[in-house]
Amino acid sequence: MLYVTRREVFSASHRLHNPKLDDNENRSIYGKCNNQYGHGHNYILEVVIAGETDPKTGYLIDIKCLKEIILRNVIDKVDHKHLNYEVDFLKGIIPTTENLAVAIWKELKDKITSGRLFSVKLYETENNYVEYKGE
Amino acid sequence: MLYVTRREVFSASHRLHNPKLDDNENRSIYGKCNNQYGHGHNYILEVVIAGETDPKTGYLIDIKCLKEIILRNVIDKVDHKHLNYEVDFLKGIIPTTENLAVAIWKELKDKITSGRLFSVKLYETENNYVEYKGE
Amino acid sequence: MLYVTRREVFSASHRLHNPKLDDNENRSIYGKCNNQYGHGHNYILEVVIAGETDPKTGYLIDIKCLKEIILRNVIDKVDHKHLNYEVDFLKGIIPTTENLAVAIWKELKDKITSGRLFSVKLYETENNYVEYKGE
Amino acid sequence: MLYVTRREVFSASHRLHNPKLDDNENRSIYGKCNNQYGHGHNYILEVVIAGETDPKTGYLIDIKCLKEIILRNVIDKVDHKHLNYEVDFLKGIIPTTENLAVAIWKELKDKITSGRLFSVKLYETENNYVEYKGE
Amino acid sequence: MLYVTRREVFSASHRLHNPKLDDNENRSIYGKCNNQYGHGHNYILEVVIAGETDPKTGYLIDIKCLKEIILRNVIDKVDHKHLNYEVDFLKGIIPTTENLAVAIWKELKDKITSGRLFSVKLYETENNYVEYKGE
Amino acid sequence: MLYVTRREVFSASHRLHNPKLDDNENRSIYGKCNNQYGHGHNYILEVVIAGETDPKTGYLIDIKCLKEIILRNVIDKVDHKHLNYEVDFLKGIIPTTENLAVAIWKELKDKITSGRLFSVKLYETENNYVEYKGE
Repeated sequence: MLYVTRREVFSASHRLHNPKLDDNENRSIYGKCNNQYGHGHNYILEVVIAGETDPKTGYLIDIKCLKEIILRNVIDKVDHKHLNYEVDFLKGIIPTTENLAVAIWKELKDKITSGRLFSVKLYETENNYVEYKGE
Repeated sequence: MLYVTRREVFSASHRLHNPKLDDNENRSIYGKCNNQYGHGHNYILEVVIAGETDPKTGYLIDIKCLKEIILRNVIDKVDHKHLNYEVDFLKGIIPTTENLAVAIWKELKDKITSGRLFSVKLYETENNYVEYKGE
Repeated sequence: MLYVTRREVFSASHRLHNPKLDDNENRSIYGKCNNQYGHGHNYILEVVIAGETDPKTGYLIDIKCLKEIILRNVIDKVDHKHLNYEVDFLKGIIPTTENLAVAIWKELKDKITSGRLFSVKLYETENNYVEYKGE
Repeated sequence: MLYVTRREVFSASHRLHNPKLDDNENRSIYGKCNNQYGHGHNYILEVVIAGETDPKTGYLIDIKCLKEIILRNVIDKVDHKHLNYEVDFLKGIIPTTENLAVAIWKELKDKITSGRLFSVKLYETENNYVEYKGE
Repeated sequence: MLYVTRREVFSASHRLHNPKLDDNENRSIYGKCNNQYGHGHNYILEVVIAGETDPKTGYLIDIKCLKEIILRNVIDKVDHKHLNYEVDFLKGIIPTTENLAVAIWKELKDKITSGRLFSVKLYETENNYVEYKGE
Repeated sequence: MLYVTRREVFSASHRLHNPKLDDNENRSIYGKCNNQYGHGHNYILEVVIAGETDPKTGYLIDIKCLKEIILRNVIDKVDHKHLNYEVDFLKGIIPTTENLAVAIWKELKDKITSGRLFSVKLYETENNYVEYKGE
């Protein structure tokens, strides 16, 4: 069993806000992350694929293909966007790093053409990151 | 002559948009950075102080003081903010990295308590950064 | 299952020395790390919490709380200290990276307010690090 | 159970080419990586050892010994070399990152003097890496 | 005066060898870098442009344009290539980091569409790099 | 004019304390850095050499030689040492990063065999560093 990782970067803004709660509760839970105009990050996304190596190519998955899959299904949809308002696959989701990692997992899960999706790791900053390996 | 550098990090969102130009022109100049909801970054700020070492302390400037000056005058005002709408010292400024570096320079210039401000370096991403050393 | 990681940094000095062994044996085991005056490192600590996301907040654990728990229970006790002489929870422990990781695990294990402690990763330098996931 | 990691770096060139396939097929699979003169990388190798700490030393494995084992068995053989032509333990192997990680695992597996080899992680670039944990 | 930096990465192989010297002399000067099959690196290139900000755009130079200029004139010609045999603008040049930096400077000097080329910084590894600012 | 940089790393401990001042004054100036047992860092040292390229070799300075000069004159004397008590060239010096950079400059200045010493850059942590370019 081998694990192949591809790292991509995107820039986005978000606001942590639960519309089911009132303003005071939102402020007390999210603090400055609840700021109404949002704030932003350079997110780093690491996608890990698990599987066997194809003896003909020596690849588990062609990294150019993996890159294309990540760009088309995730990066193109979130880069330079506001994650609360502009991303179809994030509709109705509070854009915490936890929820983003799970949503990205769901976007990628059935698109991997060789091997299987093993984990999604998402860095909000160099000090905070989340990893999701599926249910 | 010695140069002391302090690095701080902040997260913010911005939109590149010149209100004096029409929408087409803005889109053609700024591309996806003109996206109306804005997008965001983890900015890295490096502030460089030039001067002589005080023989009594061995410091050019106490790094704790320098950190305090940067936090109070810059980071506290921009972290987790939208740079187009919420920052007094950026009013009327298109928040390109170039303009941000110059504006931060002006904020800090007269606040340095030991030595003098030598340069401000601002990373928008790991691949793009701007340095400003004053007029 | 999600994994949330928080990274913190501290600076400390230590000396590798087993008081039950004589000086020759200590020098032959630890080499220059046995130097009597000690030497130091900028340690990087990564604390990983495993658990489920709270649907109300979208958080597994509020990263500000996790940061506070790590600062109060670990960083405040070890930062700018000599690990052989000044840290209560390291009394009687040879401060190798292995032993430090286990000791930090024990300090944090019962303090996590949401989810459970999954692993402690401690970098002594950019080239050497240890991970501990409990017994 | 503890995990100790040592990181080493080497520079090498390689060409992705399967001699059993014709030129067109090679070009279509490997693209610019099939370039006949080869190209190169600064590879980063992380070797992870799993085991218990020796109470006498506080070490799972002496990091100086682990470094020596990695240098003698891997780095000395691949650093500043062409991986297709000059490395005994890579004879007959298409030098994809996947195959390199497995080959390095086999080189190291029986040479570890304390604990056991847990994983080999090989970075081809900062954006692409492979991990292998044995069959 | 402002300085804008763009960072790009390429992978290439090279061999340090002066054809005017005999084999012994080459081996004694270049050591393992003289290895006949070559070896390779992930080079990091930083290109710095100096100039004034255009008040209309807030840009010294549009970073997308700068990226295009670097890709077309340098990266496309050297990425996944052998620097001794396959790069027109390196013909007859011993591909030391020093010589590469100067050659890249010459390639870029007259292609900058806004501001002027201030410096070229080339990292061979994370530990070695060269900067060139023109004659 | 070219600039060649070599990066080396060392681990050391130090205590910020001016023996000419009393304990209260020392504590008020240096805070937790005055802790009597000292604390430590992984210092990163960058040494920059300026000069012309030798047309015969394509080198300004052979990086292996530069590495040797830095190891013999600096790293071997400070790595795994207490900077207040064990380093000849730091006798009588308060080991702030400022003073260390100047002292390392003096150690290296006359030892450079090709080109001339241009600057010494010393990182105490990833957030704080000092550069010295001579009087």
